[in-house]
Amino acid sequence: MVIVGAGFGGLEAAKALGKADNVRVTVVDRYNHHLFQPLLYQVATSVLNTADISAPIRSVLHSRNTEVLLAEAKSVDARRKVLVVEGGEIPYDSLVVATGASHSYFKHPEWADVAPGLKTLDDAVRIRERILTAFEAAEREPDPERQREWMTFVIIGAGPTGVELAGALAYMTRHSLPKDFRRIDTRQARVVLLEGLPRVLNAYPEELSEAAKRDLEKLHVEVRTGALVTDLDAESVTFGDERIATRTVLWGAGVAASPLVRSLEVPLDRAGRVKVTPLLTAPGLEDVYVIGDVAAAEQHGKPVPGIAPAAMQMGRHVAKTIRDRLANKPLRAFRYHDKGSFAVIGRGYAVGVLYDKWRMKGLPAWCVWAGVHIAYLIGFRNRLFVMLNWGYTFFTQGGRNMRLITHNVAKRMPALAASPQAPALPPPARPELPASQPAPVH
Amino acid sequence: MVIVGAGFGGLEAAKALGKADNVRVTVVDRYNHHLFQPLLYQVATSVLNTADISAPIRSVLHSRNTEVLLAEAKSVDARRKVLVVEGGEIPYDSLVVATGASHSYFKHPEWADVAPGLKTLDDAVRIRERILTAFEAAEREPDPERQREWMTFVIIGAGPTGVELAGALAYMTRHSLPKDFRRIDTRQARVVLLEGLPRVLNAYPEELSEAAKRDLEKLHVEVRTGALVTDLDAESVTFGDERIATRTVLWGAGVAASPLVRSLEVPLDRAGRVKVTPLLTAPGLEDVYVIGDVAAAEQHGKPVPGIAPAAMQMGRHVAKTIRDRLANKPLRAFRYHDKGSFAVIGRGYAVGVLYDKWRMKGLPAWCVWAGVHIAYLIGFRNRLFVMLNWGYTFFTQGGRNMRLITHNVAKRMPALAASPQAPALPPPARPELPASQPAPVH
Repeated sequence: MVIVGAGFGGLEAAKALGKADNVRVTVVDRYNHHLFQPLLYQVATSVLNTADISAPIRSVLHSRNTEVLLAEAKSVDARRKVLVVEGGEIPYDSLVVATGASHSYFKHPEWADVAPGLKTLDDAVRIRERILTAFEAAEREPDPERQREWMTFVIIGAGPTGVELAGALAYMTRHSLPKDFRRIDTRQARVVLLEGLPRVLNAYPEELSEAAKRDLEKLHVEVRTGALVTDLDAESVTFGDERIATRTVLWGAGVAASPLVRSLEVPLDRAGRVKVTPLLTAPGLEDVYVIGDVAAAEQHGKPVPGIAPAAMQMGRHVAKTIRDRLANKPLRAFRYHDKGSFAVIGRGYAVGVLYDKWRMKGLPAWCVWAGVHIAYLIGFRNRLFVMLNWGYTFFTQGGRNMRLITHNVAKRMPALAASPQAPALPPPARPELPASQPAPVH
Repeated sequence: MVIVGAGFGGLEAAKALGKADNVRVTVVDRYNHHLFQPLLYQVATSVLNTADISAPIRSVLHSRNTEVLLAEAKSVDARRKVLVVEGGEIPYDSLVVATGASHSYFKHPEWADVAPGLKTLDDAVRIRERILTAFEAAEREPDPERQREWMTFVIIGAGPTGVELAGALAYMTRHSLPKDFRRIDTRQARVVLLEGLPRVLNAYPEELSEAAKRDLEKLHVEVRTGALVTDLDAESVTFGDERIATRTVLWGAGVAASPLVRSLEVPLDRAGRVKVTPLLTAPGLEDVYVIGDVAAAEQHGKPVPGIAPAAMQMGRHVAKTIRDRLANKPLRAFRYHDKGSFAVIGRGYAVGVLYDKWRMKGLPAWCVWAGVHIAYLIGFRNRLFVMLNWGYTFFTQGGRNMRLITHNVAKRMPALAASPQAPALPPPARPELPASQPAPVH
């Protein structure tokens, strides 16, 4: 059988089938690593390394019956039972489609260049560079208005990704960066979080949305709900009657399922997800299972949420179904067990719901969040190094060593103040620094 | 005063001047981080993270009199005493040029695309991806000849970089990767090290070159000396009458000083370095100091080597000269103290010379190398995390978690075997794997 996508769902299915003697598994992914997406925002905000939240798929799937293939899946030919990849075809008896989702730019694909989303390690590294580069540019910028634009960050979408990114970025501007700069005060940076719906974390109970908003505002994040973005370019964001001048826009809104499932020619929902059967198969295709963020599953009339635990449960369920079929055992419908979900606001602050019952906020919620994330990280090494890096950041009050710009961005910096007599650099403006001391400049 | 380049020389000068009250320092670099280049090959071979061997320049230089500017230096106008950067000019009273060197492709700049060198973090990440991608491609490749090409790695230049890269890569193919692949045996990979001169590590005593060659060959590196490369393309390397078919060529030969010094209009040596005065100034320009790999300094008729300790000594010497000048003290000529240099061959193997006297090889040399490198790494965090990562790799017999391909390389993979009846993937060929077991493929 063939599994496309080694995210939470696909990997869990592969691991569960790796123990079966009577199955041969091929796992296809376009990257060589499994990614622990829930911590991606911490790579983007310089807390963690790329390797801390990822693991080579090959080293996770060492079973003898499992093969891993680096390949870009193009389409499924369900009649010929073939997965078409770039450069070839892979026949299957059963297929598990677990190719995930990305953010949706609604009807504005051109916004993707200006406002990158956060889905891959490359995205995280790119966003990290954009944030750090903006402060470098602000430090160089002689014009106060343009300096303010460089120090304004707009995050679109207040789901968990947007909220976590906004909180981490605001914390960074207040605690990690201030003492590094001479001409700007990074604590003056604006972090604006825009949400089209009436509240942040819309999937959470209203009381937790309120708490999250209050905590974000304590971190000096400007939260704007009911703010539908109508225009976006490299220098501004427009919503309603308002326009914010900014050089850094990050995108965390909407859900667009991987386009691979379109080739299945089965009914899709508005986000492009397959409306799966209770066995998690595509309607009419009993050998094609669809799981994780590409699946629109329902339970008691409520959608199963697009989060890691749901994808993992689906992966395990599909593995069981396949084994049961081979053993001619009766098959069972998928049932989602809601263990809860959490979103972090800042250092020691989170909100969340445990077992669909207990609403938590503040430090207790953060402790559950941290424990669960460490526990679910793949591999001993990742757990150890994530804890060490968190410990380092905690004890140094926000110290962040991953503040790397590895690309040469120097050519994109703003022009310095041009003045043939005076020094080209304006004198440092920070009050703490004795700019006017009579030091002979040598 | 202005310092261009925050490598070993520039950073040391800035740190030494950071304590002086009567000097204001501006450090200009096109990257935001200082890079510990001697360990770059360990990022390229998946042992260390990018952040483990780098530190944000701003966090290293926290003195009140020091300013950091991210900018690309274009030229020096020594008459107007101005450093010209992309987007502006920075006037100086004294200038320290510490912009380093890159590899030289001799008269073939077009080879740079095919055979990347190892000088920046981006280079290291790119080389890491090329190495890992080659094995992924080999695993997919149905044609045995092309598969061998993907599993052939040629490294050009057997200076310290080339030797260390070859040793680490050979170790990786034998110990870190074998159990990850099903269709290829990574232990069959060829690592070929080409050197135009008659021996490897030409700057070292002959006896150590011999020892290094023997140790490399024990690691199954094919060492070819006196091998001048005459042609190079995406599929082969030609030297003498020989041609090696390979998809991965890495470059570690030649030295080309940063082109910035050409604008000084002073005498340069063949590698483009400034022939500095005993005070390390450019001839005829007493306010322009040139240090590190852009300086061609001599001592007792022998060139000062282009290594980190020499650059650091130069940086400290220039800082002292500047302070002495301000204090109207007599100035002293630069004297290089040769503390030694070491090159690592493999796990627990190195060669080197200590204090220009003691020749060392094997484990003792490796211990000195490791100790010195840990001691000179910038910052407590880097030391701790490099040691932890080394410990992890050591105790897991080569376990390498940084095996990340973060770019989407899937589109560049070779075509799968096309055969409409049989499965598109050829059956696994590894003897350990029971390819012919009568497992029902589901």
